[in-house]
Amino acid sequence: PSIHFSIDSFNIYSRIQNRTSNAPPMTLCSSHSHPSSSESMFEFRTFDPEGLVFYGDTQDGWFVLGLRGGVPEMQMTEGDAISYTWGGPRLNDGQWHKVEVRSEGSFVKLEVDGSLALMVGLNSLGAPGRSHLRGQMRLSLGAMLIEQEKLYHPLVLPMDGCLAKGNWLNQRNLWETDTKLDAKLCLGNIRRGSHF
Amino acid sequence: PSIHFSIDSFNIYSRIQNRTSNAPPMTLCSSHSHPSSSESMFEFRTFDPEGLVFYGDTQDGWFVLGLRGGVPEMQMTEGDAISYTWGGPRLNDGQWHKVEVRSEGSFVKLEVDGSLALMVGLNSLGAPGRSHLRGQMRLSLGAMLIEQEKLYHPLVLPMDGCLAKGNWLNQRNLWETDTKLDAKLCLGNIRRGSHF
Ligand SMILES: [Ca+2]
Ligand SMILES: [Ca+2]
Ligand SMILES: [Ca+2]
Ligand SMILES: [Ca+2]
Repeated sequence: PSIHFSIDSFNIYSRIQNRTSNAPPMTLCSSHSHPSSSESMFEFRTFDPEGLVFYGDTQDGWFVLGLRGGVPEMQMTEGDAISYTWGGPRLNDGQWHKVEVRSEGSFVKLEVDGSLALMVGLNSLGAPGRSHLRGQMRLSLGAMLIEQEKLYHPLVLPMDGCLAKGNWLNQRNLWETDTKLDAKLCLGNIRRGSHF
Repeated sequence: PSIHFSIDSFNIYSRIQNRTSNAPPMTLCSSHSHPSSSESMFEFRTFDPEGLVFYGDTQDGWFVLGLRGGVPEMQMTEGDAISYTWGGPRLNDGQWHKVEVRSEGSFVKLEVDGSLALMVGLNSLGAPGRSHLRGQMRLSLGAMLIEQEKLYHPLVLPMDGCLAKGNWLNQRNLWETDTKLDAKLCLGNIRRGSHF
């Protein structure tokens, strides 16, 4: 049982913990086969040092944005290649941060609070000329849509963080979610341990 | 005409500009086919926002450490894959910074002033199980040993920066250089434009 609805602010971890089926808790499929932009932006707040923020894939490969030691990391594939990148500012300070991920030319760029924090490029001779995060895309918040064993660097996935003001792939934010889900919103003020 | 000698502190750009042949200005080959460590560390000082710091290669691929916008970047290959990574602290502030690059497990780690700044992993099904920067290695300071068109992201290579206290691959620091080279040392104090 699932329903499409628009989401403003929510806690990623609660949505995962409280779901009643094994289906991914929140997924979105881009409606265009060639979206004009693969830009996604949102505000994010956490004290959690490690976990998955979002997963995305196209026919060409998959992409993961996570935190490790509070610092952003990206794992992605392209053809028969897989890459791992970790770096940038520590985000798990309990403050709201603007996060933007976009495909630009042959790079994936991560901006934090308006500044470029991390830039990644990956190409494989096995898949020449394609660009990352293009074409029809599936997105999932807080969960992977493939086996997590495929990651380059294993990650403890649960992320106790709040997401707000998301703009995903420039689509209307209609996510497919489990109706039984506790729609736990973010607390106005959090301290370490507010959520679990 | 070349000679092996030990180098303490020098300006990368001067060495490149003043050489009398087309041979790379400074190269080093590791003497062991399986060095116990592929760690290299040095101190680095520059105002230059963009350029090549060092190039290295093995039979398995090549590696470049550069600056762009004053921020470190790494470009590397593995099998038929090539990756680009940019991120970390701005280094071109005219202060001495300790820089360390090492291969650790399946990651290449960049440390700046004792803190992990950037971590990269790359694997290609075309070359399973190999690790980066292992095996017999060639190193070159301030110059590439392959065509620069092979870079993922083109770089304006000349780097006006000072290198000191280098420990390269845990080898005695015997570099092969052009004897005609002006052994211009770093100035004790620099300002913007001190070198060119
Ligand atoms: Ca490609
Ligand atoms: Ca966590
Ligand atoms: Ca490999
Ligand atoms: Ca330069």
